[in-house]
Amino acid sequence: MASQTVSAVPKVVIVGAGFGGLRVAQALRRAHVQVTVIDRRNHHVFQPLLYEVATADISPADISAPIRSVLRRQRNAEVILGEVTRVDVKQQQVLVETLPGERTIPYDYLVLATGAQHGYFGHDDWEPFAPGLKSIPDATTIRQKVLLAFEAAEIESDPEKQQALLTFIVVGGGPTGVEMTGAIAGLAHKSIVRDFRHISPQSSRILLVEAGPRILATFPESLARKAEKALEHQGAEVKTGAAVEEVDECGVVIKGERVPAKTVIWAAGVKASPAGRWLGAEMDRAGRVLVERDLTVPGHPEIFVIGDTASVTGQAKPLPGVAQVAMQQGHFAAEIIRRRLAGDTTQKVFHYRDKGNLATVGRSFAIADIGPFKLSGFVAWVVWLTVHIFYLIGFRNRVLVMLQWAWVYFTYQRGARLIPGSVSEEHERSRSASRP
Amino acid sequence: MASQTVSAVPKVVIVGAGFGGLRVAQALRRAHVQVTVIDRRNHHVFQPLLYEVATADISPADISAPIRSVLRRQRNAEVILGEVTRVDVKQQQVLVETLPGERTIPYDYLVLATGAQHGYFGHDDWEPFAPGLKSIPDATTIRQKVLLAFEAAEIESDPEKQQALLTFIVVGGGPTGVEMTGAIAGLAHKSIVRDFRHISPQSSRILLVEAGPRILATFPESLARKAEKALEHQGAEVKTGAAVEEVDECGVVIKGERVPAKTVIWAAGVKASPAGRWLGAEMDRAGRVLVERDLTVPGHPEIFVIGDTASVTGQAKPLPGVAQVAMQQGHFAAEIIRRRLAGDTTQKVFHYRDKGNLATVGRSFAIADIGPFKLSGFVAWVVWLTVHIFYLIGFRNRVLVMLQWAWVYFTYQRGARLIPGSVSEEHERSRSASRP
Repeated sequence: MASQTVSAVPKVVIVGAGFGGLRVAQALRRAHVQVTVIDRRNHHVFQPLLYEVATADISPADISAPIRSVLRRQRNAEVILGEVTRVDVKQQQVLVETLPGERTIPYDYLVLATGAQHGYFGHDDWEPFAPGLKSIPDATTIRQKVLLAFEAAEIESDPEKQQALLTFIVVGGGPTGVEMTGAIAGLAHKSIVRDFRHISPQSSRILLVEAGPRILATFPESLARKAEKALEHQGAEVKTGAAVEEVDECGVVIKGERVPAKTVIWAAGVKASPAGRWLGAEMDRAGRVLVERDLTVPGHPEIFVIGDTASVTGQAKPLPGVAQVAMQQGHFAAEIIRRRLAGDTTQKVFHYRDKGNLATVGRSFAIADIGPFKLSGFVAWVVWLTVHIFYLIGFRNRVLVMLQWAWVYFTYQRGARLIPGSVSEEHERSRSASRP
Repeated sequence: MASQTVSAVPKVVIVGAGFGGLRVAQALRRAHVQVTVIDRRNHHVFQPLLYEVATADISPADISAPIRSVLRRQRNAEVILGEVTRVDVKQQQVLVETLPGERTIPYDYLVLATGAQHGYFGHDDWEPFAPGLKSIPDATTIRQKVLLAFEAAEIESDPEKQQALLTFIVVGGGPTGVEMTGAIAGLAHKSIVRDFRHISPQSSRILLVEAGPRILATFPESLARKAEKALEHQGAEVKTGAAVEEVDECGVVIKGERVPAKTVIWAAGVKASPAGRWLGAEMDRAGRVLVERDLTVPGHPEIFVIGDTASVTGQAKPLPGVAQVAMQQGHFAAEIIRRRLAGDTTQKVFHYRDKGNLATVGRSFAIADIGPFKLSGFVAWVVWLTVHIFYLIGFRNRVLVMLQWAWVYFTYQRGARLIPGSVSEEHERSRSASRP
């Protein structure tokens, strides 16, 4: 493979194939560089639709694209399935744990785009009882929890336990929390209504809990109020100013009051991936690497950190953890690398251009905050649908997801209501979860 | 729920919601009975297409239907997610482990339709190295193994280890083995050819091993020969008269010769589910319950055993383990139950009507043995496609699977090439698999 000529080509190593990392790779398509994309999973995930996998609207494969397929035609790019364990900034190399063993990947430019995980504000012991939503396995875990709660409620004879099984609490009133809440309400109050004989899924309690004074803090207040109304109209409850004080296997404690619930979903906070620790760089409280205004690490003009892992200095308020930011930063980082390779070392500064924000609230209702336009209702939902279909990577997925949405929309039927495990496997799982 | 009037309705308990069990429930739709379907999973699986999930052609949800959805409109049927632990034939009740705990379900008629698992002919220690294909988790396990082998080969520098990673052995030349082999050949030689930079997936060795003198023993010899040719044409090797003597993590031993391979798939044998043990009934060598010619257990006219779990006495040769048999037996059992309830105790005998056999060999080639018609090639494949789409339960799945097939057919692209785990999870898994 690596002849003398090839090794003279500058090496760009990108860690993470989310929206940011992939954009860097693609923007270097025609550059005279060797691009290596490292990810610990084999697929890119379209995260904005993860909640639909969690609520059994669509299948994991519908919002995933194998990274190899995405970069198939880009001959200057290769993909390594592996987990970064360390970055040697002096030797300029990345240590990667791969299936056959540890490998060392040298770089001339390094881009860290490793995203974020859910953060529990120091309460990591809550995680087993309140899973978050960042990956496909997270989504299938939540799906399993939600569907199994209805199955157990159908058999449970104790009314109190039954009510706890039919109580679903979503912690965190950001877009993810709102979307999850709307989707669970749709599932319980519409899709599966006629599937049970001993319970009435309509009687489920679906509760969105937000510590701040209102939900959707990043949206204008008028839109947030409309979203709250829509959630209530769909049969969900919204509690604001309600910080969660405790989460355990019996439910949550909110403002001193215990709410029994067998299903709690965490959408309240994120913490950055360990990229900062690999670098030994300065980080903010959420673990994000503090980068210069050109997205490089101080003292390392050859290392970029982008997306949810980065905190750009000199910003009035931190940039939101959305795909738009990651993609624009990815594009910017690739541009800087191309310029540097061409001998241009002019100092550039990253500017984020907010193209607008969207959030959907269950079936056929969304809010859209696009420059001067503040939309809500069905029209906003059509905008949401169009944008999301357009951005789904891979033609097949676009068509299939659209068809599945149409199917769910017109029939209220969920296609992907699959619980992969069996009852004894589930018992085994809950036993090992409650082990210390 | 259970008022005096309701409890006077005869109770039919069906264990297992495969092709046989569901057919019993549906055939009792208009009968004056209370039907209870117990399954340890929440979904019916269209098993004939499981191999396509294993080779990443389609998603698990495309060939699964929630049992509750299938029986939603049948008001005399309820579904219990649970695992049967015991049958008390004297008290006429079934003991079920459910999520909230053990439950006792009384019955007037009991139908056991619990299917079969893979059997290793006394070599259960081979299972971790040669997974079989009977459930959705089995299929995703195999998919993961196959896809990860290519990922590891891409990174592996030792040519011998690389060759072992690119060697795929399917044990057993029945329809499942042949279909798996064809599908893996299609994946390696067509779909992913351009995805890698350091290996050439075309150089993969795909080997079908059969102990008997020829593959597809249940088909006419002329068709089996054509299938073998088609497999070879697609780049697979077929070895007949080749019993596997050993399976371990390094590969297999065939007739004293070791073949190094990291992926071995078991399609060689089945053993029945433990239904026979629950009953304390007489069983054949494969664990099937020996039933009367009316499918009831000797001495228990109220207990039926159907499908892969049953061995009907007085048959010249055992009935094949296919959906057709299970469905016809399910229909027959429901008919007998209806007659008995109407006071008709005439002795009836089950007759199997073979409507023909189909097997597909990779892309656009199949064989069909339908009465006087022996078809092979594209025409047989169209027959195969039509039959399988027609029988897929649930309209949504039919349309989606057809679209995905069309997509795979015209582009060679697999949609479902998703490996859910990450590298460190995979390391954890392989460590626990090799633990004694």
